[in-house]
Amino acid sequence: MAAGVLDESSVRALGARAEAMINELAAISAEPNRLVRLFLTPEHRQAAELVTGWMRKANLQVLEDALGTLRGRTPTSAGRRLLIGSHIDSVIDAGKYDGPLGVIAGILAAEHFARTEQKLPFGIDVLAFGDEEGSRFPSAFSTSAAVAGAFDPAMLKFADSKGITFADALAAYRKNPADIAPLYQPGEALAYVEVHIEQGPVLEAENRPLGVVTGIVGQHRMRVTVSGQAGHAGTVPIKLRQDALVGAAEMVMAVETLARGHESDGMVATVGRIEAFPGAVNVIPGRVDFTVDLRSMTDALRRAAILRIETQARRIAIARKLKVDFETVHDAPTTACAPAVQDALADAITDLGLTPVRLPSGAGHDGQMMAKLCPIGMLFVRCRGGISHNPAEYASPQDMGYAIAALIRFIERFDPG
Amino acid sequence: MAAGVLDESSVRALGARAEAMINELAAISAEPNRLVRLFLTPEHRQAAELVTGWMRKANLQVLEDALGTLRGRTPTSAGRRLLIGSHIDSVIDAGKYDGPLGVIAGILAAEHFARTEQKLPFGIDVLAFGDEEGSRFPSAFSTSAAVAGAFDPAMLKFADSKGITFADALAAYRKNPADIAPLYQPGEALAYVEVHIEQGPVLEAENRPLGVVTGIVGQHRMRVTVSGQAGHAGTVPIKLRQDALVGAAEMVMAVETLARGHESDGMVATVGRIEAFPGAVNVIPGRVDFTVDLRSMTDALRRAAILRIETQARRIAIARKLKVDFETVHDAPTTACAPAVQDALADAITDLGLTPVRLPSGAGHDGQMMAKLCPIGMLFVRCRGGISHNPAEYASPQDMGYAIAALIRFIERFDPG
Repeated sequence: MAAGVLDESSVRALGARAEAMINELAAISAEPNRLVRLFLTPEHRQAAELVTGWMRKANLQVLEDALGTLRGRTPTSAGRRLLIGSHIDSVIDAGKYDGPLGVIAGILAAEHFARTEQKLPFGIDVLAFGDEEGSRFPSAFSTSAAVAGAFDPAMLKFADSKGITFADALAAYRKNPADIAPLYQPGEALAYVEVHIEQGPVLEAENRPLGVVTGIVGQHRMRVTVSGQAGHAGTVPIKLRQDALVGAAEMVMAVETLARGHESDGMVATVGRIEAFPGAVNVIPGRVDFTVDLRSMTDALRRAAILRIETQARRIAIARKLKVDFETVHDAPTTACAPAVQDALADAITDLGLTPVRLPSGAGHDGQMMAKLCPIGMLFVRCRGGISHNPAEYASPQDMGYAIAALIRFIERFDPG
Repeated sequence: MAAGVLDESSVRALGARAEAMINELAAISAEPNRLVRLFLTPEHRQAAELVTGWMRKANLQVLEDALGTLRGRTPTSAGRRLLIGSHIDSVIDAGKYDGPLGVIAGILAAEHFARTEQKLPFGIDVLAFGDEEGSRFPSAFSTSAAVAGAFDPAMLKFADSKGITFADALAAYRKNPADIAPLYQPGEALAYVEVHIEQGPVLEAENRPLGVVTGIVGQHRMRVTVSGQAGHAGTVPIKLRQDALVGAAEMVMAVETLARGHESDGMVATVGRIEAFPGAVNVIPGRVDFTVDLRSMTDALRRAAILRIETQARRIAIARKLKVDFETVHDAPTTACAPAVQDALADAITDLGLTPVRLPSGAGHDGQMMAKLCPIGMLFVRCRGGISHNPAEYASPQDMGYAIAALIRFIERFDPG
């Protein structure tokens, strides 16, 4: 093991502290029996107060920006900052690790450097975002967008399920939209690094606690409509049918086959919804609607795959005398993690005696916005069964301890250039 | 052309009369803008009165049984009867030909023999059933079952969508369930013959106005449940997925492939409903429910096909680490049309200078019940686009004229043995 690496008992202690803090944060919820902590709510305020207290105890100077993002800053004269963060909002009926782990990891790492009085040639900023999930307004990443100077004021008109607008919620949170401003000057932010549970099964399948994220996948979502001819299930011979569902089934298979051929790119494709019309047991489906969600680490591959799916679906439709239409409902480009940050994270993991797994993030993260400001990197932590957005979400204290130790090692070896 | 065959102008006149009567009956509906004529409703009563009037004008003696079935009987001393009939109830938002054509064909044929004073060595009974579609209660064929002595009193407990039971509806129709009894003595019914629109596209595809039904297909309906593992559409690699929908899509394809291999048997198989759970664009389906409706002219083939589908689905499930379950919700055997009746109908069609097409009935009919009483036969009439159970349902007056002329020819050549 390299010099400066924490010993096993320190790693265990970090994991135990992280778990205790995660549990403390998880007790803050809008509902008694499940975890619901939404953006700009009293629970957000309460969580922010708890995190502010933790930051202060870690010797961080706390600032809260106009969207409620907390920044805990090490007191240093160095103008350049390494940013470490994640989010404290949750989905509805959430798990407790998604978000909090990354904020707590940053605080515990900063505390380590404060306690050991290690001198660093840069300052550390720990960020706690409040709108990563987009669970209240259709505004995911608004808080990191604001920090990175990419906030879209049109979002202020978004309303939540009760009809309260983002702007009204902000006023109730005692904030002023006129104060929304980037938190960094050009060149000030050296990099943004986030520790997060994987939310997928790769690390568990590979039997490794930690992974280095290569990038956040670009995403394309579309609605596909297959039109045929409805008919009596008993009276129309197979050869005279224009069965929209059999055609759609062939397309669903084609979507999977395509994605299977691009697994090395981290491509995944999912048909999550399907409906046949009129939808009676004894009627040949005349129309089928289904969705495609396709993600890829390469924008060119993603676009090529969508074209390929459309071409194949059209070919299937022609052969079956069906019609097929496509409607794009979402399209977001890939965000690469900086190779230098990836390598430094991998080295830090290796220094712990662990083997880093490189993997893409199939889920979205604040890093997509922070990449507009500076190079980004993400460290993934194994979670049980790949389950997330669910109360069954779980990461072991040991794995979390490894993650924080790796983050500390990453920070002490980080070269600001 | 053989002697006794009607000339073209008589055929045209019969078609025109049938069309006028069909339109008159179609005006009786529970709703102003669509055709809804359900069992034991005021519309059923009104239709029964119209049909009774037609029967009387055709010199038929009318009896209404305990379930509202009308029987119009030629006044003859012959004890044995040829039964001709169909139904006057409809589906919701029905076409106007499905059912009424067969009743009207019987009446016009009986009228022909009354007018021409042709002596027949048997009597004719025209039957107008009221519960063929099963659109009100889940009790299809209850009226023909009663006539054939196969009524199941358990049906009286069935409730309609408003909670009114079959028994209550019967009382409101001024009938007494204690009076439900078979209408025929053993040996009295020589055969039951029904004229009906095809409700499928075969005759149109073959460019023939009339067809002879070889039998009414046996039918198997089941619900299939495919269980996998729900997951994040972005974070679970394809190779680690247990995607219930891709598995279900493969099964849907297998169902079609199986049916395609048995088209000569008249086998058809349909997946009419499908649903993926949880059914979100960005969640891998953890469960999919779909239905299979499989019909075949051969009971052994039908059963073998169902076993084959189950075996294939299990194989697909195992390969994909899924689970699959089957629940049979309906299973009815094949009803053969009597070869002698089929041949006699074919001869009658040939006598008109037309070419009979032999084809199975993929839809259910009252003949399935009447076959418990006597040999049955069905004459199918071409309908446009194969469309039925839909306001767009259409049979041309010319084709209907041919059908009634063929029925008349069949009757005059019918050999009671």
